[in-house]
Amino acid sequence: MVRVGVIGCGYWGPNLIRNFLKVEGCQVVAAADVDPVPLAPLRRLYPATRFTTESEALLASDQVDAVAIATPISTHYTLAREALRRGKHVLVEKPLTATVPQAEELIDLADRQRRILMVDHTFIYTGAVQKIKELIRRGELGEIYYYDAVRVNLGLFQNDVNVLWDLAPHDFSIMTFLLDRQPVRVSAVGAAPVKAGGWKMESIVYVTVEFADETLAHFHLNWLSPVKIRRTLIGGSLKIVVYDHLDPDNQVKIFDRGVEILPDRDSRYRTLVQYRTGDMLAPKIDQSEALEQVCRHFVDCIRTGRRPLTDGAAGLRVVQLLEAAQHSLDQRGVVTGV
Amino acid sequence: MVRVGVIGCGYWGPNLIRNFLKVEGCQVVAAADVDPVPLAPLRRLYPATRFTTESEALLASDQVDAVAIATPISTHYTLAREALRRGKHVLVEKPLTATVPQAEELIDLADRQRRILMVDHTFIYTGAVQKIKELIRRGELGEIYYYDAVRVNLGLFQNDVNVLWDLAPHDFSIMTFLLDRQPVRVSAVGAAPVKAGGWKMESIVYVTVEFADETLAHFHLNWLSPVKIRRTLIGGSLKIVVYDHLDPDNQVKIFDRGVEILPDRDSRYRTLVQYRTGDMLAPKIDQSEALEQVCRHFVDCIRTGRRPLTDGAAGLRVVQLLEAAQHSLDQRGVVTGV
Amino acid sequence: MVRVGVIGCGYWGPNLIRNFLKVEGCQVVAAADVDPVPLAPLRRLYPATRFTTESEALLASDQVDAVAIATPISTHYTLAREALRRGKHVLVEKPLTATVPQAEELIDLADRQRRILMVDHTFIYTGAVQKIKELIRRGELGEIYYYDAVRVNLGLFQNDVNVLWDLAPHDFSIMTFLLDRQPVRVSAVGAAPVKAGGWKMESIVYVTVEFADETLAHFHLNWLSPVKIRRTLIGGSLKIVVYDHLDPDNQVKIFDRGVEILPDRDSRYRTLVQYRTGDMLAPKIDQSEALEQVCRHFVDCIRTGRRPLTDGAAGLRVVQLLEAAQHSLDQRGVVTGV
Amino acid sequence: MVRVGVIGCGYWGPNLIRNFLKVEGCQVVAAADVDPVPLAPLRRLYPATRFTTESEALLASDQVDAVAIATPISTHYTLAREALRRGKHVLVEKPLTATVPQAEELIDLADRQRRILMVDHTFIYTGAVQKIKELIRRGELGEIYYYDAVRVNLGLFQNDVNVLWDLAPHDFSIMTFLLDRQPVRVSAVGAAPVKAGGWKMESIVYVTVEFADETLAHFHLNWLSPVKIRRTLIGGSLKIVVYDHLDPDNQVKIFDRGVEILPDRDSRYRTLVQYRTGDMLAPKIDQSEALEQVCRHFVDCIRTGRRPLTDGAAGLRVVQLLEAAQHSLDQRGVVTGV
Repeated sequence: MVRVGVIGCGYWGPNLIRNFLKVEGCQVVAAADVDPVPLAPLRRLYPATRFTTESEALLASDQVDAVAIATPISTHYTLAREALRRGKHVLVEKPLTATVPQAEELIDLADRQRRILMVDHTFIYTGAVQKIKELIRRGELGEIYYYDAVRVNLGLFQNDVNVLWDLAPHDFSIMTFLLDRQPVRVSAVGAAPVKAGGWKMESIVYVTVEFADETLAHFHLNWLSPVKIRRTLIGGSLKIVVYDHLDPDNQVKIFDRGVEILPDRDSRYRTLVQYRTGDMLAPKIDQSEALEQVCRHFVDCIRTGRRPLTDGAAGLRVVQLLEAAQHSLDQRGVVTGV
Repeated sequence: MVRVGVIGCGYWGPNLIRNFLKVEGCQVVAAADVDPVPLAPLRRLYPATRFTTESEALLASDQVDAVAIATPISTHYTLAREALRRGKHVLVEKPLTATVPQAEELIDLADRQRRILMVDHTFIYTGAVQKIKELIRRGELGEIYYYDAVRVNLGLFQNDVNVLWDLAPHDFSIMTFLLDRQPVRVSAVGAAPVKAGGWKMESIVYVTVEFADETLAHFHLNWLSPVKIRRTLIGGSLKIVVYDHLDPDNQVKIFDRGVEILPDRDSRYRTLVQYRTGDMLAPKIDQSEALEQVCRHFVDCIRTGRRPLTDGAAGLRVVQLLEAAQHSLDQRGVVTGV
Repeated sequence: MVRVGVIGCGYWGPNLIRNFLKVEGCQVVAAADVDPVPLAPLRRLYPATRFTTESEALLASDQVDAVAIATPISTHYTLAREALRRGKHVLVEKPLTATVPQAEELIDLADRQRRILMVDHTFIYTGAVQKIKELIRRGELGEIYYYDAVRVNLGLFQNDVNVLWDLAPHDFSIMTFLLDRQPVRVSAVGAAPVKAGGWKMESIVYVTVEFADETLAHFHLNWLSPVKIRRTLIGGSLKIVVYDHLDPDNQVKIFDRGVEILPDRDSRYRTLVQYRTGDMLAPKIDQSEALEQVCRHFVDCIRTGRRPLTDGAAGLRVVQLLEAAQHSLDQRGVVTGV
Repeated sequence: MVRVGVIGCGYWGPNLIRNFLKVEGCQVVAAADVDPVPLAPLRRLYPATRFTTESEALLASDQVDAVAIATPISTHYTLAREALRRGKHVLVEKPLTATVPQAEELIDLADRQRRILMVDHTFIYTGAVQKIKELIRRGELGEIYYYDAVRVNLGLFQNDVNVLWDLAPHDFSIMTFLLDRQPVRVSAVGAAPVKAGGWKMESIVYVTVEFADETLAHFHLNWLSPVKIRRTLIGGSLKIVVYDHLDPDNQVKIFDRGVEILPDRDSRYRTLVQYRTGDMLAPKIDQSEALEQVCRHFVDCIRTGRRPLTDGAAGLRVVQLLEAAQHSLDQRGVVTGV
């Protein structure tokens, strides 16, 4: 039996509790939050779990084998370090940490302690992302030309992070998983039109990531869009994928479309390149809940000692991109090496 | 009677002929193209128009009062200059010219010759853009926070311009018309994955434009998208507009949505800012053909001496943005002053 | 404290338990199902509730004040009658009963026992249906011309009812609530292409309902559609409503569109009637969970003695339409009086 | 050279002229309309065509080899009969005639005169309908279970026909082409809420067509819908097609979805039938203009003596369905044999 403790019972924590409870051989023995308000209804719903406002007690308990951390980003590092030091396996909400050195230290510590360190990059565990990975792995898209992600909605502003740190971890984790190549340059521009007291944080950010092989990636992150869009285009030389997380019937569409080079022509009005349109296929996508897969995978890695699909190194890659993008953002868009 | 000559009978020229023919008191007396191929079917369709492969003859003719130029961009300046020198009114396809000095010279020349110089920024004459302009003028959107335009499709590659010069003139003309404020910084990144022989041109470009008042504008231009998108978000402090050129029923949607500042709270988990959702209104949009309005307006300005809505100065503003974006693109995204 | 017992823990029962638990002053003291399989996980989730395979025990218990029945349709009448006889308030899943006389008997019994009899016409408690009711009540649509509902998807076939009895209760309850007028004629045609052993039930049904005032209503119910559609058009002389349950951003759209009578013309080619298009408004819709409102309303009526919005009479009207439609279906579409 | 005369220059006639002009070896020598108003602009556009208000002159002319008739339905028969008698080939707008005997007489007459009689069932010549025909012919859909067509919009009311005769010819022609089986029963209900003077015509009609093999077809035709829908579902035992004429990117979608019979189960809560969801394929569709294909095919049949794809017999089948549906409509939905 793996005995899990959950720290942070705000928005995401209750989802973790609910999903860990679906995993056989796993108990949620304790959950903590500094704020007592969200604990009351959870107590009624889960009478078998001990709820507390003292996360230290949870971390100190020898009833707890593994800790899932769903607290504000700034606290990830300290809580995860403490848990690892006490010999517990750790699952951390995205992003893994607030800085690159923190992530590196956690990775080292987990190695030394021989404990599982996993980051909850939920989307990696969706049927849609797995299907796209399979297409790319089999070479169906050909050479990857570009990656364009739009993640916009009317957002829940948070007072500790801007839209980059809130939304980009999703897209950075998906992109690094899918493309599996080294970014070399990052730039970011943004705006912080909503201001209140001393508070001023970017709610609109555009990020560009360039790779050594000229693949171009671009991200539009926005908390001020009246419509919700979750759409990624992945353009290859052979096929182009449109991944729309909000289209339940056709989350992944594979277009057999592209361009072809024509022999040179001399006329001023002729094109050198012609487009080609073929069929579109929307493959069947496994719709099982991704977070349940996350919890199941974490418990499984604890039992078997397997390295998680989204391990500390995967978390680090995302934090590296976030830091580089934030640096560019602070410098009004200066191109930043990674 | 205004006697019009059309130079360039490739893609857009025949549309100009067809629409000029709808305007009362206007004749298309001549049309020219260096390529004789497209002229044959046009001769059958328009027996009253004289077709020629010699644009010089058309420009020299005293049967022609006004010239509409729909040729490759690199030729706009020379043809327009020649037409103005010979005392003809000139309508030029977007973009007005290939460089800023060329545009400035044409403006001066038209002033000296007391002739109409107009640029065919077609979208300015759509019911949708006029409706949005009216909303902004009346202050309904409040302070403008951001402008985000996506114009992507599987494009007709051209051998004389990249996707920036092909598609951005549309969006730059709409934005400068709607926002009516001074850009201060431009940056652009892109990719040219499709290569053929010596030919290599950007088919994906992202452009950012910053204004003195912190409004942020962003443009996604792409010839390699399997789906066609023509969508602009204009986010204001009071309302947000979604302009989708391809949604015939609801081209303009006005969302009474946004964020509100809440009094400070001390809890770590509370948001400082809350979102607000109200009604959405899709106002009735005049659906008359924009190009007919362009032709009508050009003929009307010739008759009355009125300054066109899209005059040389409007054309210049677009060329300035294009040049600055191209400069940044050539320098891998360096932020460029305007 | 209102102590609720839930009978039937298949698909809908667990939703009832979850929502009753959100209502203050309400406990789910017991839940029953003849099948022990679904009870096991529920026991783990809700340790404070007593689960049993004996619904008789639940009905006999004096710990239970009110019973919610979520069992197959054929059992509604017997269970509700027993509950009412024992002095319990009753909430029944739609449709109320399998026959008109059964519904009439339950209504009488509840009156005599002075107990609440309520039917779970969930959609009546959605923000969307409430908003449309308000529009109609205020006369904004003008005279109602037609009501067209499409409810199709790849359905869960059931072995005790056809698609009419499964899906039409939703639409019949919405329509009778909104239109509030007397149907006079019903006809229905259908097909049962999927056959297995002795089993053969309609999976596609079209129903037409005519009213005394010439309003025409039509329903398309289909378990064999590859796409899910939940769309109702309500056409009025002044405005037309499109209600799309699956469009989260714009569930209700009010089109200021219609036709206008023109003065008579003599030409053969002129129309007598011209269409008129104005704005479209998508009003803000309350998105709170309808089933929570159902549970809250049931508990509230028990406490205050108020008559439920969806009382026995509302349930009866739906069963009358179902019976008439089934009669027509059995007779290959014969028009049937109501 | 095939010399064509067009009778009727209202809405559709000019489209016929424009498309006949694209066909090599074909001239539009004359065009007629009783109303001189639409002729003026056509004269300017097509100076090589003789325009007249006297269709008799056109029919009498020996300069005319073939006549295309685009006049109100009530006049089709008389004009087509006269043209055939004078030895001309005839293309008639849908529906072929206003009654079954008229259609039969025209078919006989064309046979005796050895002239081509073709009806302009335009949709048969679209890439989408051809693709679906190919799927059905190859057996990819399996057994056809149902055919459901929705054709609604804010319509141009006409003073000589109701919505059935205006819109259903499209769907009846597509269905009879695709399904190629004998209808046995037709029923129709409708409403005529818009009234003006003595004028009163159905603007909403629902038609059901039953076939000998239990396939069920249904049609929703509506001139009072604020949104335009052109969607047909064709449900088969193996695959289901969704044909959406207004979705330019995916006009035809083939869903590998359906239901499967499971071995009988005894539990009350288990389903006997389970649904199955697989991939969706949107094949590439030829987007060439259908009306150009119609004109080209007509000219080709004249030259080669081939029987047109949409010959008189195809036109007759549509008129038979229209007559049966109108009969049912007049009798308030009585089921009518075909």
